[in-house]
Amino acid sequence: MEVLQAIRTRRSYRGPYRDTPVPREHLRAIMEAGCAAPSGCNKQTASFVAVDDPALLGRLKALVTPSVAETAPAWVLVLTRPIVAYRDRRFNVQDYAAAIENMLLAIHALGYASCWYEGHITDEDDIAGQLARALDLPEPDRVVCVLPVGVPAQTPAAPKKAPYERRMGFNGCPGI
Amino acid sequence: MEVLQAIRTRRSYRGPYRDTPVPREHLRAIMEAGCAAPSGCNKQTASFVAVDDPALLGRLKALVTPSVAETAPAWVLVLTRPIVAYRDRRFNVQDYAAAIENMLLAIHALGYASCWYEGHITDEDDIAGQLARALDLPEPDRVVCVLPVGVPAQTPAAPKKAPYERRMGFNGCPGI
Repeated sequence: MEVLQAIRTRRSYRGPYRDTPVPREHLRAIMEAGCAAPSGCNKQTASFVAVDDPALLGRLKALVTPSVAETAPAWVLVLTRPIVAYRDRRFNVQDYAAAIENMLLAIHALGYASCWYEGHITDEDDIAGQLARALDLPEPDRVVCVLPVGVPAQTPAAPKKAPYERRMGFNGCPGI
Repeated sequence: MEVLQAIRTRRSYRGPYRDTPVPREHLRAIMEAGCAAPSGCNKQTASFVAVDDPALLGRLKALVTPSVAETAPAWVLVLTRPIVAYRDRRFNVQDYAAAIENMLLAIHALGYASCWYEGHITDEDDIAGQLARALDLPEPDRVVCVLPVGVPAQTPAAPKKAPYERRMGFNGCPGI
C-alpha cells in the first residue's frame, strides 16, 4: 500500500474482529515498523511485546475492564522506558507515539485493523501495571498502550474531524 | 512508495539541502498527512505552518542558534494545543508525535529529507516562543518542532540502532 494512501485511509477501529490468526511474520513486521521510528537523541526507549498465545492473551484481556478488542486474535503491547535524553529532557512519550503511528500504518497496510488504546489502560486503576506484572516485565519498562491486531469484521468508520484547512497555514497562522 | 519500505528507509537528515523549491501541493500533502494522524479522544490538538516565503523563512532561521536546516527551502512548524482530553489527562504530546511521524513518512515518500528538531527549539532559551512570536501565533498554540523539507544534497546515513530483536518479544519480555 502506498504511503500517503495508507496515512489517509487508516482508521481507529473499535468493532469486532474475525478469528483469522495473524502470522508471526506479520507481527514481526509490525514490531519492526515500531523499532524503525526515530527517537529523541536516538535513545530507542520504546519496545514491544506481541501476544498471540491464546491462554496468555485471554488472561491479559480479562485484566482490561471495561474490555477492549476482546475478539482480536493478537495484541501488541507498547512499552516505554522513561529515561533522560539529556539534562532533564525526556522524549520517551514522543518516541513511543511515533512508534505506535508506524505500527498502525503497518497494521493497516497488511490488511488488519487496530486502535490506539492508551488512556483507558494508563488511568488511575493501573491496568497497565497489571498487564506488566502478568507478562513479568522488568522495571523500568512501563506498558503504555495496547494495539489489537486482526482482520476487522466490520468496515471501520471515518472519524469526524475539523476541516484540515483550519489546522494548516502557509507562512502564517493555521486557518487563516 | 510502499508503506513498510518507507518506514524502513526513512532517515533523520542533518546535512545540506539543494535549493530546489518544494511545490505548495507537496507542502499541503505533508500537512494533510499530519492532520490525518489519530489523536487522543479525537481532540486534534496538532496544527501546522508551512513556511516557504524566503524572507520569512530567513527570519525564522536566524532565530535558531546554533542553526539547523539553514539550507532547506521550506520548513513545516508543528504546533500543539495542550488541552485536557478528559479529567486531568492530556494527550497532545502523543498527538503531535504521531502527526510528525506521518509527515516524516510523507516527506520521505515525496522524495525529500527532513529531521525532527524538537529538543533544540524547546529548551530553556525558548527558541520556540521566538518562532511563535515571529509568526504572530495566538495562544494557546505552542511551537514544538521544526521539520525542514527539501531535496537532500547528500545521502542520509542510517542511524546506529540496537538489534531490533532486543526491543521485541513474543508472549513475554523483549530481548528474551
